[in-house]
Amino acid sequence: MATALFPRTPRLDGTDPEAKRAEILRCFHATFDRYESLFGLLADDEAYYRKPISLRHPLIFYLGHTATFFINKLVLAGLVDKRLDPRLESMFAVGVDEMSWDDLDDARYDWPPVAAVWDYRRKVRETVDRVIRATPLVLPIGWDNPFWAVLMGIEHERIHLETSSVLMRQHALRYVRPQPDWQPCRDSGPAPGNALVDIPAGQVHLGRDFDDPYYGWDNEYGRHETEVPAFRAARYLVSNAEFLAFVEAGGYADDDLWDEEGLGWRRFVRAEHPTFWVPDGGGWRLRLLAEEVPMPWDWPVETNCHEARAFCRWKARETGLPVRLPSEDEWHRLYDHAGLADVPADAPAAANLHLDHWASSCPVTRFPHGELFDVVGNVWQWCETPTYPFDGFAVHPLYDDFTTPTFDGRHNMIKGGAWISAGNEARHVSRYAFRRHFFQHAGFRYVVSAAPVAQPGSLYETDALLAQYAEFHYGDEYFGVPNFPQAVARIALDAFARHHGGPAGRALDLGCATGRASFELARRFEAVEGVDFSARFIQTGVQLQDNGVLRYTLLDEGELVSYRERRLDALGLAGVARKVAFWQGDACNLKPVFTAYDLILAANLIDRLYAPRRFLAHVHQRLNPGGLLVLASPYTWLEEHTRREEWLGGFKKDGESHTTLDGLKDLLGERFDLVEGPRDVPFVIRETRRKFQHTLSELTVWRKRG
Amino acid sequence: MATALFPRTPRLDGTDPEAKRAEILRCFHATFDRYESLFGLLADDEAYYRKPISLRHPLIFYLGHTATFFINKLVLAGLVDKRLDPRLESMFAVGVDEMSWDDLDDARYDWPPVAAVWDYRRKVRETVDRVIRATPLVLPIGWDNPFWAVLMGIEHERIHLETSSVLMRQHALRYVRPQPDWQPCRDSGPAPGNALVDIPAGQVHLGRDFDDPYYGWDNEYGRHETEVPAFRAARYLVSNAEFLAFVEAGGYADDDLWDEEGLGWRRFVRAEHPTFWVPDGGGWRLRLLAEEVPMPWDWPVETNCHEARAFCRWKARETGLPVRLPSEDEWHRLYDHAGLADVPADAPAAANLHLDHWASSCPVTRFPHGELFDVVGNVWQWCETPTYPFDGFAVHPLYDDFTTPTFDGRHNMIKGGAWISAGNEARHVSRYAFRRHFFQHAGFRYVVSAAPVAQPGSLYETDALLAQYAEFHYGDEYFGVPNFPQAVARIALDAFARHHGGPAGRALDLGCATGRASFELARRFEAVEGVDFSARFIQTGVQLQDNGVLRYTLLDEGELVSYRERRLDALGLAGVARKVAFWQGDACNLKPVFTAYDLILAANLIDRLYAPRRFLAHVHQRLNPGGLLVLASPYTWLEEHTRREEWLGGFKKDGESHTTLDGLKDLLGERFDLVEGPRDVPFVIRETRRKFQHTLSELTVWRKRG
Repeated sequence: MATALFPRTPRLDGTDPEAKRAEILRCFHATFDRYESLFGLLADDEAYYRKPISLRHPLIFYLGHTATFFINKLVLAGLVDKRLDPRLESMFAVGVDEMSWDDLDDARYDWPPVAAVWDYRRKVRETVDRVIRATPLVLPIGWDNPFWAVLMGIEHERIHLETSSVLMRQHALRYVRPQPDWQPCRDSGPAPGNALVDIPAGQVHLGRDFDDPYYGWDNEYGRHETEVPAFRAARYLVSNAEFLAFVEAGGYADDDLWDEEGLGWRRFVRAEHPTFWVPDGGGWRLRLLAEEVPMPWDWPVETNCHEARAFCRWKARETGLPVRLPSEDEWHRLYDHAGLADVPADAPAAANLHLDHWASSCPVTRFPHGELFDVVGNVWQWCETPTYPFDGFAVHPLYDDFTTPTFDGRHNMIKGGAWISAGNEARHVSRYAFRRHFFQHAGFRYVVSAAPVAQPGSLYETDALLAQYAEFHYGDEYFGVPNFPQAVARIALDAFARHHGGPAGRALDLGCATGRASFELARRFEAVEGVDFSARFIQTGVQLQDNGVLRYTLLDEGELVSYRERRLDALGLAGVARKVAFWQGDACNLKPVFTAYDLILAANLIDRLYAPRRFLAHVHQRLNPGGLLVLASPYTWLEEHTRREEWLGGFKKDGESHTTLDGLKDLLGERFDLVEGPRDVPFVIRETRRKFQHTLSELTVWRKRG
Repeated sequence: MATALFPRTPRLDGTDPEAKRAEILRCFHATFDRYESLFGLLADDEAYYRKPISLRHPLIFYLGHTATFFINKLVLAGLVDKRLDPRLESMFAVGVDEMSWDDLDDARYDWPPVAAVWDYRRKVRETVDRVIRATPLVLPIGWDNPFWAVLMGIEHERIHLETSSVLMRQHALRYVRPQPDWQPCRDSGPAPGNALVDIPAGQVHLGRDFDDPYYGWDNEYGRHETEVPAFRAARYLVSNAEFLAFVEAGGYADDDLWDEEGLGWRRFVRAEHPTFWVPDGGGWRLRLLAEEVPMPWDWPVETNCHEARAFCRWKARETGLPVRLPSEDEWHRLYDHAGLADVPADAPAAANLHLDHWASSCPVTRFPHGELFDVVGNVWQWCETPTYPFDGFAVHPLYDDFTTPTFDGRHNMIKGGAWISAGNEARHVSRYAFRRHFFQHAGFRYVVSAAPVAQPGSLYETDALLAQYAEFHYGDEYFGVPNFPQAVARIALDAFARHHGGPAGRALDLGCATGRASFELARRFEAVEGVDFSARFIQTGVQLQDNGVLRYTLLDEGELVSYRERRLDALGLAGVARKVAFWQGDACNLKPVFTAYDLILAANLIDRLYAPRRFLAHVHQRLNPGGLLVLASPYTWLEEHTRREEWLGGFKKDGESHTTLDGLKDLLGERFDLVEGPRDVPFVIRETRRKFQHTLSELTVWRKRG
């Protein structure tokens, strides 16, 4: 039996490269062949060209796609020097994701004959085979090892093995035919009554190190640790029978059970029951891969996330308990509580997983896992948690848009794997996510917990200006120019130490933008208030306070971006961040409450104010006697920001050049002494990988007399 | 007599600082006092407040102005630490130049009482006196010596001594009264017949070294040398009698004798005769400083430049000779031909100059200078030459807008000085210029020459973008980044030497902008063609070819600018510039004539083209076999320049990142080999004194297969 097992994802380490090469070769062949065998379920050529669902390509695309993916990644990795068939490869490269209505124009595709694609696959198989045999192999295989591209191709094909099987299940019955290799489970019976199992509180430690000995997708790396409060979990996955009560109670017609997004989906598709349920007179049958069978009531129901959530709301109403889907963290508590381990290399899984048993679900009572059943396997389990990057996340250079586009709060995690999930998919560390209306071989288990589910706080900031400022405040240095808000804050703190005898009480960072200088001032000051006209900018600082992490995409070239993550702790600011309060405000019309400061910093502010004279005329009212005003500005006066009459300088006055510094002296001289500067503080703002603003800000320190 | 001479401008060198201090003090006192004595000509207080001419301030302003100027410059030089009277000084600071109609709003001025201004002058006199006595004096006095500010104030007041005397001459007679110190010449008689004197061809060497031992205004420094062809010059200045013939011939009514600008002036003021001529029955009287006298027909006529030019055109028509005003260079030939020297320190001038004789003109027959009369003195002499900066021009930091605003082609030179011209004004190296419709104590001498008068070719480029590019191509380096077009051209030349065996024949610089790389390529290539879409950019290169010099203003802060001059010879490019031809053209639709090149350079071009794919698809047709294509670009693709479909890269293609370099390889690979690069070449574009674009251009060298 062991030899018939679908090969597990290989370990990346070892001492015998040639043995590893042979293992990878077997794994490739088995995966490539198993994928082709799936297409044996299609009844005829028409089945390749008819779309199972309108928003996705027909299966002919998916037959070619996994092969082209191999070539693309091998080209990128430098293992293949030219394309096998540029026309086919262009056609098969993209189109995996569900598209919007107007994006998938059939007329644009002139699909090749089925035989041509099979022929193409044969050539790809030979090419990959040759690459695996000929490429020097050094163990362990890390992210930058050429073999990573080979493993990526294999794991990618295993994903499509599963998603293509879903499309076949969505195909009209006349387009499919059962095959001996893809036989479903024939067991079924009455469903068990479900029950709640106590799961004690506990820690979860998620995220993998970058030298973890198994292949992973980028979003599995990094670190996430948290304490999960005690909760109760349904012993069984929700069965078709348990879900029937919801259907019969009118759950699909009860708008109160659906959130806005779910309601939108339900109305759009006019859903009245689970998608694979087939009405049959007064009863139901179930659509499997290539056949319909009498409803197996004790098999897990398959739903999308919206249906699962609506069921939980109904259940909560019925029971008065806080029923909901588990969070990703809670799923890991189930896994730990059940004492599970990943699929063994040389024995069938103790779960309906990895194609080790059937080409379908099986009764929810079949695989006990501690006090629970089906913690892994059978069908995927929807979680309440939208996918998000762990701290330390980084994209893999060969595939930088595999998970990053899903960090949008609209893709929810599925955990545990289904009967067809293999390789990485079958590992408990895997982290797949789909749009909430999407169908996979996925159902759910409900939990009872009053604890709210944490929503990922830090998605990728893609707004170009915000991302520029995030990088400006928290990112890399360019041309050797030190971080500007940090440099300015340090100068301010040094000046404060030199020119102000007293304790560092309250500081104001006016025009704080994304807040770096506010945090830096909080290293010394008791309390710092960061004020900016832009609520969007401030939100970045608030997000850092809340989550300690900031993520954004940086424009590289044209539309190409790269991904950045910055952490307050890495900047040594995690301990002081709570001392900062951010506020939206107008420096020219600041509320009276902003007063009694020992230091006011206004960096790169005054030449963007509409009334800088008014600001400077009143700023002394906000400072304690002896307090410092730190100004830094490149004096880039522009009529679009500041009317000419309001400019502080940069013009001829009484026949002589009147610089902004002259203007500052005129306006501040009555109440302030200039105690430091002027000095230049440079800064660089990155616009693209190749284009930067490089500016000199003039810094002056003024002490309020008193 | 010698003690009564109005002190000459002091030498700046010497061995006895205290003697020099005493000399400067005497000069200051004499100038300050003489200026005040001029105001003794005003009859009453109303004379101070009534404007002599509508477009200029009343004389009360000029009384205060020269005093305030001292304070302003002493403050700037750090010799005075605070203003004496900020309100008066703001009022008296600006308003010297003639203004436009809507700029001089009387209501805006609430002039102080005359006595208050006299009192202010007294305080200024004390202050300047104290500064001269107390400031350490090191000889010689150079541009950066604090005493330069003192001399500037003195020379500035001497200028206003003259211009205020013109205003008094324009005042209504009832506002003035003759004074013993300001007595006119009483000699007059019949005018001499004029005659032409042969002036042989000769060299002139104009411009002063910066260590010249006399004070000068900025536009006198630098160097201008040229060969002046032989010409003939009128022996005498044009007398009132000689000009009468023009008046009586209907010259003022004959539009053919006036150019467009002159006609505009003449019609606007309805001029029918010289401005100081007063119709008197059928005859004429002449207005002097404070009286009208019977017309002295043998005195020089006083006109503006338009009237002088009209006379010359009339004279040319009458005589059939090429009569015109002299150029500045020709005036210097007259000076050299007459063997003149500047006014002696200890004896009256041998000319009606420096107030050594009268407070008016005198007969044109009084002061012979070689074969000519009045080469200097009596009245200023209009020249055909608009003022312009000499090569090596630099502004003085204490007064950066003294001459620069007049480099506009609309201010013509006057030479030789008038009876009241003193100090620097009286020196032959002085270079004053006024608008062509302006009146001074100025007339003219005509010359006969078929040689055209060179017009200053290089005025200051003030367009911000052109000036940015001029600095980018020919200016300073910032942040240590080497000049970009030079660096790119050098890389191109090196690559050519390495990858092309043959001679460096023809090169094309596509997107040449202001042309620096074209000139740099001409160091090696036989012929270089520079092509740009912008005719304005190309004009800069053409100007450099024509004049060898380029001048522009750089934005410093707000509206404040600084002045730059760049020379082809200083860049070692004067010898090769003639090998370059500049053309306006569209890189995406280039005329067939642009072909058969050995090297094509396209620096910072492709991401600004509207059809870069078309350009690259055809560029091989323009190269000889084995020829090089050198591309450099930061790949800053923007929809505003290039439609998304035309981008060469910077997007996902077939699911993978497709960089511009990938796109270049796809488009050029068929016909070119990539022989060098990619490598980064940085560049910096200065926007203001504090704001820069800092960019990395990716450079690749492609050889056309052949």
